[in-house]
Amino acid sequence: MKTCFKLTQLIKLTQLIIIVILLTLNFSKVTMAQNLAGAPLPSWNKGTNKQTIINFVENVTDPENPNYVAPEFRIATFDNDGTLWAEKPMYFQVAFALSRIRELAPNFPEWKEKQPFKAVLENDQQYLANITVNELLEIAMVTHAGMSQKEFEQEAREFLDIAKHPRFNQLYKQVIYQPMLELLTYLQNNQFKTYICSGGGLDFIRLFSEEAYRISPENIIGSNILKKYKIVSDHSQFIRQPQIIEPINDKAGKPVNIERFIGKKPILAVGNSDGDIEMMQYTVIAHQPSLALLVHHDDEMREYRYTTGTEKALKLAKKYNWSVISMKQDFKQVFSFSP
Amino acid sequence: MKTCFKLTQLIKLTQLIIIVILLTLNFSKVTMAQNLAGAPLPSWNKGTNKQTIINFVENVTDPENPNYVAPEFRIATFDNDGTLWAEKPMYFQVAFALSRIRELAPNFPEWKEKQPFKAVLENDQQYLANITVNELLEIAMVTHAGMSQKEFEQEAREFLDIAKHPRFNQLYKQVIYQPMLELLTYLQNNQFKTYICSGGGLDFIRLFSEEAYRISPENIIGSNILKKYKIVSDHSQFIRQPQIIEPINDKAGKPVNIERFIGKKPILAVGNSDGDIEMMQYTVIAHQPSLALLVHHDDEMREYRYTTGTEKALKLAKKYNWSVISMKQDFKQVFSFSP
Repeated sequence: MKTCFKLTQLIKLTQLIIIVILLTLNFSKVTMAQNLAGAPLPSWNKGTNKQTIINFVENVTDPENPNYVAPEFRIATFDNDGTLWAEKPMYFQVAFALSRIRELAPNFPEWKEKQPFKAVLENDQQYLANITVNELLEIAMVTHAGMSQKEFEQEAREFLDIAKHPRFNQLYKQVIYQPMLELLTYLQNNQFKTYICSGGGLDFIRLFSEEAYRISPENIIGSNILKKYKIVSDHSQFIRQPQIIEPINDKAGKPVNIERFIGKKPILAVGNSDGDIEMMQYTVIAHQPSLALLVHHDDEMREYRYTTGTEKALKLAKKYNWSVISMKQDFKQVFSFSP
Repeated sequence: MKTCFKLTQLIKLTQLIIIVILLTLNFSKVTMAQNLAGAPLPSWNKGTNKQTIINFVENVTDPENPNYVAPEFRIATFDNDGTLWAEKPMYFQVAFALSRIRELAPNFPEWKEKQPFKAVLENDQQYLANITVNELLEIAMVTHAGMSQKEFEQEAREFLDIAKHPRFNQLYKQVIYQPMLELLTYLQNNQFKTYICSGGGLDFIRLFSEEAYRISPENIIGSNILKKYKIVSDHSQFIRQPQIIEPINDKAGKPVNIERFIGKKPILAVGNSDGDIEMMQYTVIAHQPSLALLVHHDDEMREYRYTTGTEKALKLAKKYNWSVISMKQDFKQVFSFSP
């Protein structure tokens, strides 16, 4: 069978084929990107807060928008305890140190009278629930001083791989807020650099942050003790010293360390307590576009309900126009598991 | 005019067109990448050192090679003074502080007898040429304490935009080794994360590192003074304190800060002095694949010739099999300008 064409028809056909191919290639790119992203924040209930976040991300990533921010300046900093994972009945890092404190107690008879050690030895749950970041760090400093970094990591990994949250009966590293995980993913898919900025110990957080949050070790800002470098039988070692590096990564120490580690001001900060006030303030004061989110623990059924340690932040949220995230109202689902 | 085809011929023609388009698209990607990269390290003379670097990069980036390293672990750390830019006749940061020291001298009569201030006031060139990192930091700490970070940056930027190197008559920020710049670019094009790890002040380096080296603020590890965060008339400010944060980023402080800031061991370290020994050792000891390069200043014609402060490193280079880069032999060109 023969088919006859004009040469011009043939050229047009060829053009058509090329256009179809190019469109297909382009279309598949767009749909792939959309499939990867999906509808953002599925575990968030519809409402002002969800919409504020989505509007913010859409604006700063849209080159046509006056609030467009280049990818290298899309810095987002997240507190960890109470913001990404739970912090009750006590900081998970304190739970990690409990057995070590009891083990060391015979060498430190003064602990019987000295907080926060006294509370650990007497199992004073109320005290432990409201321990300060400074006390947390004193525990972190004392319990593993003199150990090599490798030994510390082994011990902490063991805890994280085995120990379970007393109420939820899940590994601590799984007691993570599903909506916050989705927020991290949403930001990462939109070329944000996501950082943790926590009062807790840098080394402890690094052991699960990649797996839990897809945040790599160089993007963790935390409190830290000094280490000494030495060579032991042809291997390099870091020995943990009983000395905290200033500033402690809490309150006004957070912006100082953000400036030190990143050298750029975040455009998004997420916290949950008075320890996060300065980080959120630094992010939004005289700085546009920017957004600050304050997670409010108001859901005693699915998580916890408390305002202790967050009274000042809740007041300031109104003054500074921070978005207060109600776990009860804004979170369709709290954890990836059913509590 | 009419041309006649069999339908099978037409299908074949269509297939051919599709194949040509797809090949062209693919080919253009490859050639674009090649054009971007070019032949690596053009300002390096052919020889063992150039070949060692190229082999290393080709091996760690080749997924088929047993020494392949995933991009997230391709960490390279570079010393700055004497490694990326010159450090004679004195550390450029000391040159920056000279006028400020003279300005402040009337308030500190004891400086007349106290080094390194005495050397500045007496213009003792030999002393200034061999100032230690600790002395550099004492100068940095004292000269701008109490200033806001913004004021410090303005003053330092002014220096960097105006002050010229006394011998080369070029802006200090242009007295950069062209071969090292090419090495940085080569690594960056091969998905290495390039960091500066310098004994000098973090804040000073950040002011030119993006422009000079394409290294962004969050990838600078340096010595640092403590800052205080505060709000002044609705703006956030950092006030520079007269207190150095430990450890100083020199000698054994370098691996400690690399561990603190990155949390991953580099696979490539580049230095030039005894202050870089521990960083290079940390990178290569019991760690494969890895490479350490020691820049040796042996070219009095085009740059400087000295071994003071680098004697121990040169000895250890043999023991540990570090590549010693001879500026005289390995650098086809030293700077981007002609000295």
